[in-house]
Amino acid sequence: MALPLRRRRLPPLLPLLLLAAGGLRAAERSGGGGGSSSAMEELATEKEAEESHRQDSVSLLTFILLLTLTILTIWLFKHRRVRFLHETGLAMIYGLIVGVILRYGTPSTSGHDKPFSCSQEDRPFTTLLVNVSGKFFEYTLKGEISPGKIHNVEQNDMLRKVTFDPEVFFNILLPPIIFHAGYSLKKRHFFRNLGSILAYAFLGTAVSCFIIGNLMYGVVKLMKLVGQLSDKFYYTDCLLFGAIISATDPVTVLAIFNELHADVDLYALLFGESVLNDAVAIVLSSSIVAYQPTGENTHAFDAAAFFKSVGVFLGIFSGSFMMGAVTGVVTALVTKFTKLHCFPLLETALFFLMSWSTFLLAEACGFTGVVAVLFCGITQAHYTYNNLSVESRSRTKQLFEVLHFLAENFIFSYMGLALFTFQKHIFSPVFIIGAFIAIFLGRAAHIYPLSFLLNLGRRHKISWNFQHMMMFSGLRGAMAFALAIRDTATYSHQMMFSTTLLIVFFTVWIVGGGTTPMLSWLNIRVGVDPDQDPPPTNDSFQVLQGDGPDSERRNRTKQESAWLFRLWYSFDHNYLKPILTHSGPPLTTTLPSWCGLIARCLTSPQVYDNQEQLREEDSDFILNDGDLTVTYGDTTITANGSSGPHTATTSLDGRRTKSSSEEALERDLGAADHEVTSRGTRLVFPLEDNA
Amino acid sequence: MALPLRRRRLPPLLPLLLLAAGGLRAAERSGGGGGSSSAMEELATEKEAEESHRQDSVSLLTFILLLTLTILTIWLFKHRRVRFLHETGLAMIYGLIVGVILRYGTPSTSGHDKPFSCSQEDRPFTTLLVNVSGKFFEYTLKGEISPGKIHNVEQNDMLRKVTFDPEVFFNILLPPIIFHAGYSLKKRHFFRNLGSILAYAFLGTAVSCFIIGNLMYGVVKLMKLVGQLSDKFYYTDCLLFGAIISATDPVTVLAIFNELHADVDLYALLFGESVLNDAVAIVLSSSIVAYQPTGENTHAFDAAAFFKSVGVFLGIFSGSFMMGAVTGVVTALVTKFTKLHCFPLLETALFFLMSWSTFLLAEACGFTGVVAVLFCGITQAHYTYNNLSVESRSRTKQLFEVLHFLAENFIFSYMGLALFTFQKHIFSPVFIIGAFIAIFLGRAAHIYPLSFLLNLGRRHKISWNFQHMMMFSGLRGAMAFALAIRDTATYSHQMMFSTTLLIVFFTVWIVGGGTTPMLSWLNIRVGVDPDQDPPPTNDSFQVLQGDGPDSERRNRTKQESAWLFRLWYSFDHNYLKPILTHSGPPLTTTLPSWCGLIARCLTSPQVYDNQEQLREEDSDFILNDGDLTVTYGDTTITANGSSGPHTATTSLDGRRTKSSSEEALERDLGAADHEVTSRGTRLVFPLEDNA
Repeated sequence: MALPLRRRRLPPLLPLLLLAAGGLRAAERSGGGGGSSSAMEELATEKEAEESHRQDSVSLLTFILLLTLTILTIWLFKHRRVRFLHETGLAMIYGLIVGVILRYGTPSTSGHDKPFSCSQEDRPFTTLLVNVSGKFFEYTLKGEISPGKIHNVEQNDMLRKVTFDPEVFFNILLPPIIFHAGYSLKKRHFFRNLGSILAYAFLGTAVSCFIIGNLMYGVVKLMKLVGQLSDKFYYTDCLLFGAIISATDPVTVLAIFNELHADVDLYALLFGESVLNDAVAIVLSSSIVAYQPTGENTHAFDAAAFFKSVGVFLGIFSGSFMMGAVTGVVTALVTKFTKLHCFPLLETALFFLMSWSTFLLAEACGFTGVVAVLFCGITQAHYTYNNLSVESRSRTKQLFEVLHFLAENFIFSYMGLALFTFQKHIFSPVFIIGAFIAIFLGRAAHIYPLSFLLNLGRRHKISWNFQHMMMFSGLRGAMAFALAIRDTATYSHQMMFSTTLLIVFFTVWIVGGGTTPMLSWLNIRVGVDPDQDPPPTNDSFQVLQGDGPDSERRNRTKQESAWLFRLWYSFDHNYLKPILTHSGPPLTTTLPSWCGLIARCLTSPQVYDNQEQLREEDSDFILNDGDLTVTYGDTTITANGSSGPHTATTSLDGRRTKSSSEEALERDLGAADHEVTSRGTRLVFPLEDNA
Repeated sequence: MALPLRRRRLPPLLPLLLLAAGGLRAAERSGGGGGSSSAMEELATEKEAEESHRQDSVSLLTFILLLTLTILTIWLFKHRRVRFLHETGLAMIYGLIVGVILRYGTPSTSGHDKPFSCSQEDRPFTTLLVNVSGKFFEYTLKGEISPGKIHNVEQNDMLRKVTFDPEVFFNILLPPIIFHAGYSLKKRHFFRNLGSILAYAFLGTAVSCFIIGNLMYGVVKLMKLVGQLSDKFYYTDCLLFGAIISATDPVTVLAIFNELHADVDLYALLFGESVLNDAVAIVLSSSIVAYQPTGENTHAFDAAAFFKSVGVFLGIFSGSFMMGAVTGVVTALVTKFTKLHCFPLLETALFFLMSWSTFLLAEACGFTGVVAVLFCGITQAHYTYNNLSVESRSRTKQLFEVLHFLAENFIFSYMGLALFTFQKHIFSPVFIIGAFIAIFLGRAAHIYPLSFLLNLGRRHKISWNFQHMMMFSGLRGAMAFALAIRDTATYSHQMMFSTTLLIVFFTVWIVGGGTTPMLSWLNIRVGVDPDQDPPPTNDSFQVLQGDGPDSERRNRTKQESAWLFRLWYSFDHNYLKPILTHSGPPLTTTLPSWCGLIARCLTSPQVYDNQEQLREEDSDFILNDGDLTVTYGDTTITANGSSGPHTATTSLDGRRTKSSSEEALERDLGAADHEVTSRGTRLVFPLEDNA
C-alpha cells in the first residue's frame, strides 16, 4: 500500500536523481503559435533554467564524490583491518562533514522569485492556469506552506537542492537493498531457524512497537507536565514512533559477523529477524496511520478502527507476500520453459525486469512494494536461481550486490548530511533520553521473554550469550530513517525524525564499534565454517540432554517442526521444485497417475538425468535439523542438535529410483551423518553408513 | 552544455522513473501548526494522491511488461535464427501495438482540475503562493500553454502518464548506451581506421547536416509555394533537422555483423563512425540552436553569429572530450595506486561512480554529458581496464552491458509507443518524402566523396562494396529520436519529430531486415576471425601495388599516419601507459634521468616483472598498420596491407632490456610477421625472424 503519509516538505531534488533538470526548469520557450515574446526575455529565462540544471548537477556530484571518498576509505579500512568503525558509520561521518560545510559554508541566497498571492476558492487545485499579459502558464501544486513560514520559503538554495524527496528512499534506494537481502539469504540456516525468526520478527516487533509507543506516551505526558512540549503529540504518534524505531538493521554487526565468520545460527537469527522486521515495521506503520477513529474523539481508542487497522496489516502483508511469491514463480516458470539460459544477457535482463515489476505490481495494487520485493527475492533465490545459467547466476548476484552497496552507502551518507541540512529539526532532550531508554526496554522486552518461550520448544536452545548479543545488536538503520523521514509535516513527526536520526547515529557508531569486543566478551565463537555446525558445547547452545525415551522425543520433535514444516518440505520437494525448476524428483513419480500427461509436460528432461543428484540449492534449502536426525536416524544419536554439512553431499549415497520426499529427507540426513563421521568430528556414536 | 532547447510539453512522467510519486502527488497533509482542515478533505486529497501513484505504477509496469515481452521474443528469434527483424525493430512493433491500445482503448478522462485563471504582472514567476481560504499553497511553473490549446489540457490521462520528459532520454537512457559503446570499442580495429573514422564522423556529419538542411529548405520553400505549410519554418530549423537526422545508429547492422562475423574493418568503420557522429550530432545541434543572429533580421545569415556557433561547437566538443578523458585518467590513477582490486565490489562501485560523475561534471561545467561519457568510456577501456581485477573486468562489462541493453530496448519500444501516444504529430507528406530523399542524398554526398578522398591516402582502400554497404547502413535510431523529441514546442519542430520517427521506423525495419541479403549481394565476407586480417583480394580492399621505390613509399606512409600517430603512440606507450597502468616499459627507462625519483614512484612494481610482456590491451591498441610494416619490415614485402594478428603474441619474441617505443613497435610488427609466417597464411615473401 502506498503509505497514506504525506510530507509537506518540498521535493526539490526528486527529479535530480534523473538529472532530468527539465522538471526543475521553470521557464519554457514560448509556443510556436505565439512567438511574440521578446528574445531578451526568453534568453533570461533560459539562462535561469540552465543555472538550475547546473546546480542540480553540482549537488548530485557532491553525493557521488562523497560516495567515492567513502569507497576509498572503506578500502583503506579493510586494507588495514580497522574494525572499530564500519563503512556505514564512515559514510555517515563524511555526510556529517559535508552537511556542516553546506550549512555554514554556502551563502544563504534565495532562488525563489518573490512569491505572488491571489485568493482562490475553498480547495486548492492541482493545476493552475495563470494569465500573464496575454500568455497562459501552467502551474502545479507543490504543497501547503504553514502561514508562519511563508517567508522561510526563501531559504538556502544549496540546502534545498541536496534535500531529497523522502519517496526516493522507498522507491529507489530501499528496493535493491531489500531485494538483495532476500536474494542472498543463506537459506539453509534461515530455514533451520525459521520458527524463531518469524516469532522475533512478528511478535517481537509488535511487542517492541507497543512497549516503545506506550513508554513514549508516558514521556510525552511528562513533557507536557513540565512544559517541554509546544504542540500536539497524540498517542497514535507515539505508536507510530514505536513502529518506526522497531525496524532493526544490524548491517554493521552482520558485516563483522561475516568477516569474522561468527556463529552461523546467531547470524541467521539476526539476519532473518532484521530482514523480516523491516517488512513488518513498514506494514505496521501503515496500519497505524490507517488507524483513524471515526466520530468526534479522533484520538481516543476505537475498537472498530483498531480491528480495521489489524485487518489492514494482515491484508497488506499477505497481499505483498503473494505478489512477491507470484512474480518469483512466474520468473521461475519462464526461465524453466524457455532456453533463455543460452543468452545470459537476456536472462539477466529478464530477471531484473521481473523483479522490478514485483515492486510496481504491488504498488499498483495498493500493497507495499518493498515487502513484495523481499519475498520476490527469496522466491527467486529458491526457484529461479536453479534455472539460470552459471553466468547469469553470478551476473544477477553481482548486479544486485553493486546496487545494494551503492544504495546503502548513499542512505547512510545522506543521513549524516540530513543532520545539518534538514531545516526543521526539533531536538528535545527529554524525548531523546526517553526514546533511548524506551528502545532499550522495548528490545529487552522482546528478546528475553520471546527467547524463553522459544527455548521451550526449540531443541537448539538460544543461549544467554546469544540473547545478550541479539539484545546488543538491535541497531537502527536505513529503514528507521526512511520511515521517519517519510512524513515530517507535523511537530510530533519532526521531533520523531530528529530523535530517530540520533538513535541511528548512536547505535551505528557505538554498537558497530563494540561488536568485536562484545563477541569475545560473550565467548561467541568465530572462525566458523558456514557449512559446519555449532559445536555441542553449552556455551553457544544449551544442549538438551537426551532425558526421555526415543518415542517421547520423537513426538516433541514432530510437534515442533515436523508438522507444518514437513508438510511444506514435502510439498515443495515433490511438486513445486519439479514444476518450477530443473531439479527435484520427476513429477511422473510424485503426482498421481491420472495426471500423467500434465506431469510429463511439466517435468523437464534434465530431471531424469540427474534424478538423484539434488542440486546444491535443494539440499541447502531445508532444515536437516537435529530434531529430524533424531526422528529418522534410527541410531543412538546423543542428540547434539547438529545438522552436518549438506552442501552437495547428497550425491554421495548413490542412486536410487524411488524418490519420495521422506526418502529425500532421510537421504539428506543420512548423507549428512555419513559426512560427519567421515570427517571424524564431534559425533561419538556408531553410525549406520547409508552409502 | 545543457542544450538551450526547451520543450513546452508537460513532463508528467519525469519522476515516474523513480516512481517517486511524491512529485506527482498534488495534495499534501496540512501543516502541524494549522491542523484546522477537516479530516474529510484531507482524506479526499490523499485518495487522489494514492490514485495518481497507482496510475504511475501501472504505466511504468506497462513499459516493463513490454520489455519483458520483447526479451522473450528476442530469445525466440535468436533461438530460431530469424534475421529479417532485429530486436530493436521488434521492440518498436510491440511499442506500436501498446500505443494503439492506449490511444484507442482507454477512456479519455481528464485528470486535471478545472483550470483557474488569475492575472499577473508582465512576467511569470517560477513559484506561486496561492491563498486558499486562509491556507497557503505553493505552486511551481510547468510551462506555457498556447492560447488555442487551453482546453486541450484536459486530455487522456493515461496518454499523459506514458509520455516521458525528453530529458529522461539525455540524462538516463543515452549515457549508459554511449558509455557502453566507448567501453566496448574493439580498440585495435578502431585505431587502425582512426583517420577514416574521424573523417566520416566530423566532416561527413557536417556535410550531411549541411546538405540535408539545404535540401529541406528547398522542400520547405516548395511547400510554402503550394500552400502546404501553415506556420513558420526557418532556415535554422532546416539545419537543425539536418543535424538531428545525421546521427546514424546502425545498431541493427552491427548486431548482424557481429552475429555473422562480417568483415572487421567494415565493422570498425561503421561502429566508429556511428559512435562519434552521435557525439558530433549532439554538439552540432547545440551549436545550431546557439546560432542566434543579433539585430532585427533574426533569421538571416550573420557572420559573427556563425563564427560564434563554430566556436561553441569546438568549445563544447573539446571541453566534453577533456572532461571524459580526465575522469578516465583519474579513475586509472586511483585504481593503480590503491589495492582496490582486492575488493572487486568496491572497485566496480568506484568505477561506476566515477563514470557517472563524468556526466555530471560535464553538465555542471556546461559541456555535454553524453559526449563526455563516450570519451570517458574509451579512456576507461584503454587505461583503467588494465588495472582492474579479473572479476571487476567482467563485472563492469556485464553491468554496462545490461544497462545498455535495457536502455536501448526501452528507447525503441518508446518510439513505437510515441507514434500513437504523442499528441502533436504533424505528418506532411511532402516534407516526409523530401526528407527521405534528402537523407539519401546527404548520406551519398558524404560516403562516396569522402571515401574517394580517404582512398587517396589510405593503403587499405575502402572498396566500392564497402562504400555501398556504408551507404546502406546509414540508419537512424535512438540518438536522432532523442534529439528530435527534445524540443517539440513549435510547429516546425513537431513536423521534424514526426518525420524523424517515420525515418527511424523505416530504416530500422527495412535496412535491418535487408542487411543479410545485402551482405551476400555485395560479396562482403562473413565468418571472419576478428583477430585475423582481411584477405588481400581486390574484393574487399583494393591493394595498392608496390609501384614506387621503398623510400617514396616510406615517405607517403610517414605522411599518412606516422607523423601524428607515431607521436601519440610513442607518448602513450612510453609515458601514459606506464603512469596510468601496470603495463608498458618502466618509466625509469623512458623518462630522462633527472626525473629518476618521480619515475620510480610512478612505476608500479609489476612493470619490472612483466616488463616485456605487453598486455593484450596494449598490443591490441595500436595500428600495426601495413604501412608501418613496410617502413620497418626491411624486407621485400609485396605490400598486401595486412597487419597480422597481434593479440598477445608479443611475448613470442623473447625478452629484451631496451624498450623504446620504436622497438616496441618494431617488435609488435616483427611478432606479427613471425606469427603470420608460422601460421602459413597469405604472405609469400621470405621473412626475417625477429625472435
